[in-house]
Amino acid sequence: VGAKSERMSNLSPFQELKQKADQIWTLKEVSSLLGWDQQTLMPDGSADGRANHLAVLDKTCHELLTRDSFAQALSQAENSSPDEQQQCYLRYVRRAYNRAAKMPSQLVDELSRATSAAHIAWVSAKTNDDFKSFCPHLERIYDLKKQEAEAVGFTEHPYDALLDEYEPDMKTKEVGDVFAALQPKLSALVAELTASPKQPSDRPMRQHFPIEGQKVVSHWMLEAIGFDFNCGRLDVSAHPFCSSSSSRDVRLTDRYDENFLAPAVFGALHEGGHGLYEQGSPVEFNGTPLRGGCSLGIHESQSRLWENFVGRGLPFWQANYRKLQSIFPEQLSGYDLPVFYGSINQVRPSLIRVEADEVTYTLHVILRFELEKALLTREVDVKDLPEIWRSKMTQYLGVTPPNDRQGVLQDIHWSAGYVGYFPTYSLGNLVAAMLWERILKDIPDTEEQLRKGNTAPVLAWLRSNIHQHASLYCPTALLDRLGMKLEAQPFMNYLNNKFRPLYGLSE
Amino acid sequence: VGAKSERMSNLSPFQELKQKADQIWTLKEVSSLLGWDQQTLMPDGSADGRANHLAVLDKTCHELLTRDSFAQALSQAENSSPDEQQQCYLRYVRRAYNRAAKMPSQLVDELSRATSAAHIAWVSAKTNDDFKSFCPHLERIYDLKKQEAEAVGFTEHPYDALLDEYEPDMKTKEVGDVFAALQPKLSALVAELTASPKQPSDRPMRQHFPIEGQKVVSHWMLEAIGFDFNCGRLDVSAHPFCSSSSSRDVRLTDRYDENFLAPAVFGALHEGGHGLYEQGSPVEFNGTPLRGGCSLGIHESQSRLWENFVGRGLPFWQANYRKLQSIFPEQLSGYDLPVFYGSINQVRPSLIRVEADEVTYTLHVILRFELEKALLTREVDVKDLPEIWRSKMTQYLGVTPPNDRQGVLQDIHWSAGYVGYFPTYSLGNLVAAMLWERILKDIPDTEEQLRKGNTAPVLAWLRSNIHQHASLYCPTALLDRLGMKLEAQPFMNYLNNKFRPLYGLSE
Repeated sequence: VGAKSERMSNLSPFQELKQKADQIWTLKEVSSLLGWDQQTLMPDGSADGRANHLAVLDKTCHELLTRDSFAQALSQAENSSPDEQQQCYLRYVRRAYNRAAKMPSQLVDELSRATSAAHIAWVSAKTNDDFKSFCPHLERIYDLKKQEAEAVGFTEHPYDALLDEYEPDMKTKEVGDVFAALQPKLSALVAELTASPKQPSDRPMRQHFPIEGQKVVSHWMLEAIGFDFNCGRLDVSAHPFCSSSSSRDVRLTDRYDENFLAPAVFGALHEGGHGLYEQGSPVEFNGTPLRGGCSLGIHESQSRLWENFVGRGLPFWQANYRKLQSIFPEQLSGYDLPVFYGSINQVRPSLIRVEADEVTYTLHVILRFELEKALLTREVDVKDLPEIWRSKMTQYLGVTPPNDRQGVLQDIHWSAGYVGYFPTYSLGNLVAAMLWERILKDIPDTEEQLRKGNTAPVLAWLRSNIHQHASLYCPTALLDRLGMKLEAQPFMNYLNNKFRPLYGLSE
Repeated sequence: VGAKSERMSNLSPFQELKQKADQIWTLKEVSSLLGWDQQTLMPDGSADGRANHLAVLDKTCHELLTRDSFAQALSQAENSSPDEQQQCYLRYVRRAYNRAAKMPSQLVDELSRATSAAHIAWVSAKTNDDFKSFCPHLERIYDLKKQEAEAVGFTEHPYDALLDEYEPDMKTKEVGDVFAALQPKLSALVAELTASPKQPSDRPMRQHFPIEGQKVVSHWMLEAIGFDFNCGRLDVSAHPFCSSSSSRDVRLTDRYDENFLAPAVFGALHEGGHGLYEQGSPVEFNGTPLRGGCSLGIHESQSRLWENFVGRGLPFWQANYRKLQSIFPEQLSGYDLPVFYGSINQVRPSLIRVEADEVTYTLHVILRFELEKALLTREVDVKDLPEIWRSKMTQYLGVTPPNDRQGVLQDIHWSAGYVGYFPTYSLGNLVAAMLWERILKDIPDTEEQLRKGNTAPVLAWLRSNIHQHASLYCPTALLDRLGMKLEAQPFMNYLNNKFRPLYGLSE
């Protein structure tokens, strides 16, 4: 012990703090791996044991983060004239420390108990289409989330404190203003597309595609966009996801529907986009708080960019459709590229968010964002949710849920205590459009390269402008470095340019 | 924090300690899972990140175990009139605490550096058959292991302190006396078997067996002995092993040689034996120090019992050979059961421990045990090892290594700092024979049941006499509860009864 203390005293205040913080964030990496295992290949009987493993890791991280010696080391490091990158590191750690230190452990316990109970109630309420039985649980959760916002602190809107957990430094007003301006434009486009006499068919995608062939396609899609299988894997799970425990261990999953090819192809491209972001995090950030993506919204911008802007684009399939036909000749040889392209770009207002296309998706999110804000400030009562949900769906998308199962009860998020999470999905779409517009400007032959099957220039641009910064900057600061500010116009331009011609509308 | 402290003060001193200790041993369970992942399906590029994960978990466990508040809680619990099971728990934790607290961190660091360097030197020395280049590394390691023994403490022999890590409370003298009496008897039996004109052939096992069929056999073997796949898995790795992170998450691996069926079949039964022991650990011990097997030797007794006493026995194959033939009809339909039985019980003195059969295996271990003791006390010089190795091999097994690659350089253990580990392999064989003798006495129709394919009575006996005690008792105490004391006679009886008839010798 003597030798160790001696060595440690030679460390700078920043290094002292870094040693303590890296320990915590390395344990968080371990949790990621356990979570992956749990959702892919853990034996069914192991659920309780795994829950205990995750809880103990969580508790250990919390203890290490909130002990006095950590707070002291953090303050000393902050006062030791850190350089620019060290300042980024300390900002990240300070944010996590403050959040952990400000949350009363009683509130953490109550949230944990309330969400456990709410999850069970939600499953049953959804099964029985019985919103009333879920009401008291949802009221309790919003009550506790309000307390959380007050404990964590905010200056403008209590929702800021919740949004901040997923989208650091992002403000409710900024998101709200962008969403409010976007919604009518988006609803108008949806109405026009829906009313058009020209409607692409999704028939080519809805045939029998043997799973083994689909797995070949998933793997190939990931190779096509540059995913490194030496530092990653692809497995199967009920819901596709990306999980990483280091930039050199990034694990994706995909799912396979025998009678529908789209989930496998676009699941792979979506998770692959997340995976490329994680693989692009600098190796020296592994095992530190700076590793990996900086927010859920920026992460989603990467997945959406590869899934939609590249992967549902005509140039990408000009390069790849022939090979897809050769893997599924029986199913696809009768459909030429324009028909296939239409089939992967169908727009159809629907009741269920997770099944929505790239035009209607954001309207589902805007609706949820508005309701979350209003529930938190009690402008809306939980009991009135179903009615408001129905009327907003009708107004925004032109469809009305016949029941609450397909309405307010469809998402798991609120029962799990995730309030402030939904907007990040759409921030991803908006940011992806902003980045895509810039990529097309910075690399004028992007489409030509994609037509040749060369996705490398797009990846290189993302590597140097987004990925290499990992978690050094908050989303707003990251965009600011590119001279950008969150806005919806690039997204609307992209949608109009892509979908109006597809649906035979004037541009 | 207030609410939490309040709750904690209601805990008994034992519960206070248990909370702290369970946290540590749960983190060790997490390490097990990471180790499994590393050896089965981790992407190649992730090696550095995983090494860091494991090192940080290790460091965190060490910090939690050696902090002052842990030592205080342990003493308080010990002084609080614990009941019998609590005493077992505290004994286990005290042993781990003492070992960790007594090891100077400088020595831990030096061992870590020395074994890293020695591993590289060993790989190169083995490749080039150059023992001299490995000499200084081995000297350094034995020097440090001597220091470790002195730091940890012992009363009779420094080797006690090292053996104790793998075989708690087992004494060098006890093992040495048993081994010394056993060696000449075993060598004499080997000589007789080798000289016999009747020699079973391993030809049935050495044919082309497609891997897919072998996997079916492995899975079936595990089902045949009662392994629960709802709480476990079977995967592939270069070296088969069993890893568990809870009694309900026990993961085995097997390996497959296209031209040799034995490794897959007996690998599965061997690891399955370990796996049954782990699955038999009481659920309430998960996430605590008491979970799982009590020592390497007792663990090996379980694997050897299923691999050899059951799995290489005639009754087991009377039940199962027909099915094996149906899986591999081309390869096996021409061989009847007695020929097959001979082929899985070939005895042949060889140079390499890991390839040895159940008769010669223990002689390889006795040799290593004797050398380890002598190296530790400096009765033997490292530089003289190759010569002593050759002469002992000739004396014990009648074969002489033509080089050091196939002699003193064959094992990885010493380069990794594992001294005191080898004897546990043979303790496993001896204890398995003691248990098997008792099982045949307690359940007189054991062989009849095995002939019917019913392994459940054997498993039930092991569950209630061994498995359910998990780590409550040290090996000696566990055997003492059965009125047993480590001895070699049951092992010799078993070998004589089984192999003399097979080799046409008088009984």
